[in-house]
Parts: sequence; structure tokens; C-alpha cells
Amino acid sequence: MTKSIFISTFPFADADKTPLNLLRDNDIQYHINPLSRKLNELELASLSNNFDILIAGTELISTKVLRPDSKLKFISRVGIGLDGVNLPLARKLGIPVSYTPDAPAPAVAELTIGLMLSMLRKIHTANSTMHNSQWIRYFGKRIGDISIGIIGFGRIGSRVLDLLLPFSPKSIKIFDADKSKLMSIPEKHRARSLDELLVNSDLISIHIPLTAQNRGLLNANNLSSMKKGSYLVNTARGGIVSEPDLAELLKSGHLSGAAIDVFEEEPYSGLLNTLDNCLLTSHMGSMSLDCRSQMEIEATEEAIRFAQGKNLINPVPDSEYLSQEMELRND
Amino acid sequence: MTKSIFISTFPFADADKTPLNLLRDNDIQYHINPLSRKLNELELASLSNNFDILIAGTELISTKVLRPDSKLKFISRVGIGLDGVNLPLARKLGIPVSYTPDAPAPAVAELTIGLMLSMLRKIHTANSTMHNSQWIRYFGKRIGDISIGIIGFGRIGSRVLDLLLPFSPKSIKIFDADKSKLMSIPEKHRARSLDELLVNSDLISIHIPLTAQNRGLLNANNLSSMKKGSYLVNTARGGIVSEPDLAELLKSGHLSGAAIDVFEEEPYSGLLNTLDNCLLTSHMGSMSLDCRSQMEIEATEEAIRFAQGKNLINPVPDSEYLSQEMELRND
Repeated sequence: MTKSIFISTFPFADADKTPLNLLRDNDIQYHINPLSRKLNELELASLSNNFDILIAGTELISTKVLRPDSKLKFISRVGIGLDGVNLPLARKLGIPVSYTPDAPAPAVAELTIGLMLSMLRKIHTANSTMHNSQWIRYFGKRIGDISIGIIGFGRIGSRVLDLLLPFSPKSIKIFDADKSKLMSIPEKHRARSLDELLVNSDLISIHIPLTAQNRGLLNANNLSSMKKGSYLVNTARGGIVSEPDLAELLKSGHLSGAAIDVFEEEPYSGLLNTLDNCLLTSHMGSMSLDCRSQMEIEATEEAIRFAQGKNLINPVPDSEYLSQEMELRND
Repeated sequence: MTKSIFISTFPFADADKTPLNLLRDNDIQYHINPLSRKLNELELASLSNNFDILIAGTELISTKVLRPDSKLKFISRVGIGLDGVNLPLARKLGIPVSYTPDAPAPAVAELTIGLMLSMLRKIHTANSTMHNSQWIRYFGKRIGDISIGIIGFGRIGSRVLDLLLPFSPKSIKIFDADKSKLMSIPEKHRARSLDELLVNSDLISIHIPLTAQNRGLLNANNLSSMKKGSYLVNTARGGIVSEPDLAELLKSGHLSGAAIDVFEEEPYSGLLNTLDNCLLTSHMGSMSLDCRSQMEIEATEEAIRFAQGKNLINPVPDSEYLSQEMELRND
């Protein structure tokens, strides 16, 4: 019996039609998210209920979607973050999950550098002023003149380090809770603790997954330990930074600026929208044409493999299941 | 007799007061541009007429300022560009000119990368949309997925190359009219001609001085030889690119975007202000706090050396005088 696919992620095959061609060439029936926006879990559950396979974005996939009475047999995630997927529950129901961990990294790392430079040099502000036919020459700071702190040294954090090195910042320090990850880099780049990193950095950039442990990891308590006039960049996941706390620190001027691409709830609309010193983008880390295509193609190929009873190539590793199970125990 | 200084460049000692302290510590009288904006030549002539030394920005300094009946004895340029200074005339009147060729380069190179990333990933557009409480996820391109062409391999072009390398563009080619400058880099990065560079690049970035020869170097004729959908970045000098031609190519969509920091006439107000696919900044290449301070301090120290009859450290080299003299002969 042929299997059918529901594609919830949006946009999908917008610029590059290859994923749709792959599905057609393999005679696989598919249905694309008709609401053309991110679905909440209830919407996703009711729309995907009668399909065998889900090609998913960052939607919440938990008790409403993962039900014993659903037809769902396989989830293929376009992207790397698994914070939205209840992995233990999926495993309990015998629903395997695959993802595309490598494809987004180059695009996220480039956006991160772009956000740093735009924020530090006020490029977006000058552009607005110029398009308003006003000439104001804004002062900014150079990456080469500040100390940078990176939280997380995985696929993206390590790329961000590589891109930053030729800018020769005063220092680049990296913190990762898994200290073994830092063994490959020179001692001078290793931070011993998150607190040390926050206190000494002029700019902090976040590159860790969202887990129960690091939800709200950055908040008024520790962000206020950063130097007055420092900066925060988040292209990882929204829940890692407390949005109300960040807004307060931006309003008080303790933080000179923040560049935020990811939000607790997306689409985002809230206090940060009203702050001029908060540079905002709309979860665009992976939205480069090449990386987005690559992610969609990889996720679609994996879905086709499942539909045809072939071996999966990118199943989520056991460590991710274990990590979520440990969180449940700690809750 | 003590010498007095007129400071025309604006802003001056805005964030870092060191230049003013240097002048006071050396008991040198100075007067700062009272109009707090770029002066035209007539304004500059009338305001600076009774001073011995001029600390200048990018103002035109030609027949109106350089007159036999003026008291002016020395010009210290804050910055590197000499397109505004009539060097042969200054030499004829025995007025030496110094400049600060090294200080701006790191800041200009960083702004250039920031403009590329903001333009390619639509950071400024997304920021406007978000601050307007709309959520649109814009697609962009990665530097790692395009071919980049650099025009000019001097102090800034070479830094731009260094910063771009870890992004691993499909290719980076550099053209410099002085081919000897390219001998230090691998063959694969050398373009044989400007035409070759334009035809093959997805993005062109300009890093040459403005001279009579390259005024209007990029125009409808050769910019239209670029691939449809390509990009232009100019952080060098406005006169190098024909602004009306650029506006046409942006309107027609032949160029997907441009990022322009420098203009034929500054402050700029014109057609480019009205084009959404033109990212605009206001001659902010050198406007990082550290580089701007460095430039102002170097130019001020040079002015003090002249006032005290000491040897100059950064006189404009003979090659710059020769180059302008040759242009005059070719006109």
C-alpha cells in the first residue's frame, strides 16, 4: 500500500521545486500545509491525522499529534532542532524520527555574522534613515575591537568561530557544557564557565539547542552581569533567552543592542518589536536558497525512503532521545 | 608665532576627546566647523581662510581654498581618499598634505562584509517588517553559494579577501589595474580583466580610489554585462559608479540589489533613496569608534607636528601627486 505525506513546514519548495519533483517521480501522494504559516499542534494534529508520513518544520509535535489512534508512522524534520518533537513519546508509539542536522549550519552561521555586523555598525538604522531622505552618519563598533563570547560549540558555533577569526576580535571565548567539545580548539578560546563568558564579553552569540535544562538559560540575573553597553545575538532557539528580561535590559540601556532571529512563540509579535535597539529577523537562519533546498531535499528523500521501506539515512541519534528522557526525569 | 587650526571634518572628537586634549595640551588654537555638516568648497574657503592649518574630511579642496592670498600652510586629511584635494595646486602653492592611509581600512572592510550579508539575507528588510509587527520569512543567498568579484587590491580590498575566505564562496576573483599587486595571491583569485570579473561574478565589491580615469568606471554598459540577479557593493567612492545607470539596473531588476555607502555628492539625496532593493548607508565605512578615533588622532598629531616645525610622518607620497598630474594632462 502506498504511503501519503503531509508537509507542514512552511515555506516548502518555494524557490526550488526539486522536493515536489522527487515526490511525483516516486508516485507519492502529498498534501501541503494549506494555511501557509506555522501550525499550532492542534491544527497540525487535525490536518496530518490521515497521513502516514509528516515532513515537519519547527511545529510542536507532542501528545496531540503523537496519538495511538493516528495513522502517523514516520516524521522527517526539515532542520536540526528537536525541541518541538516529543521524542520519548514518538519512540513509545514506534514512530521513527529523522532530521537534517548538517544542512542549515552554513546558512545560520552566515546570518549570525550578518546580524553582528548590522547591529554593531547600525546598517539597518542608516538604511531606514537614508530611505527617509535623511543623512546621519552613525558611529559603530568593529568586531576587531570587541571581545566575543560564543555559547555552544556544535555544528554552528564552530562555523561562527571560523568566520570570526580573520576579523581578529580582542578575544573569542567559547563555552560549552560538554567541555570535551572544546578540546579541539586552542586553550585561549575556552571559557571555564558561562558566568565567566558573560562577564568578560562585549557580545554574546548563542548556538545551543533548546532543552528543558537551558530553557531561560539567559535571563535578567545573568544578562545583567554582562558589561554595560554589551550585545546579544540569538539565532538558536527563542526559549533560551527570557524575552521579558531581554526587553527590560534593552530598555534600560544595560544592553546596547540585541539581534534576535528566534522567539519563544513564532510567528512573534511582542515587546521586542517596539525596541529600536533590537534588530529583528523572522527565524531566517536556515533561509538561504541553497541550505533551505538542501534541507527540504534531504527531508523529502528520507520520507521517500521510509515510504518505500528502505533504510533511513538520518535517523535522530539515541543521544537525543536519552537527553529528552533525562529531562523528563528531572522535571 | 603659534599656528591656528581649522577643523572642517564632521563629526570630530565626538566619541573620543583625545584629539581636542592633544590640541589643548600643546596650546594650539583651533576652531571646529560650526555648521556641523560637510562643507562645500566656498564655505570651507571662507571659514578656513584665516587659519594656518586645516584638518579636513572629504570636502573639495581646490581653487577656492588653495589660493595664494590664503593663510593656509598645511592640510592634514582625516582618512585616505585624496580625490577631493587638488594635490598639484597644493604643491604649486607650497602647501604640504598629509593623510591617514592605514587607519580606516579595518572599519571599511568590516562594513563591506556587513553590507554584503545584510543585502544577501535581507536583514534590514526583515527588521523593518518585524518592527511593523509583520512576520515574513525572507529567502536569501549565502556568500558560500556565490561568486564574488573584488575591484582593487589595496589596503581595503586585501582585507575584504581575508574576511571572505572562510565563507568559502564558489569563487573569489580580484581585478586590479596594477597587476603586480596580485602577485602575492594564488592564481585562482586573479581576474585578467574588469570585463571578465563583471561577467562571471554574482556580486562585485569596489575598493579603488576615485581618480579621473575611473570616474564612472561602472556604468550601464558594463554593469549590464553582469549576470541577471547579481549584486553590487560600493564602499569606496561615489563617482566610481554612475548613480543614474545603477538606479536603472536596479529598477529593471537586472541587478537584484546594491549596497551603497558612498555617493557622487554627499550628503546624498536622490533616486537611490526610493529603491527598496538598494541598501543605503551614509559614508560610514570609517565610522567605527576605534578607527575614527585613530584617524582623528593621527591627523591631529600630524597637524601638531607641523605647527611645531617637526618632521611630518604621513605626508601624501609622490605617487599620488604624479597620478593627479597625469590625469590633468589626459583631461
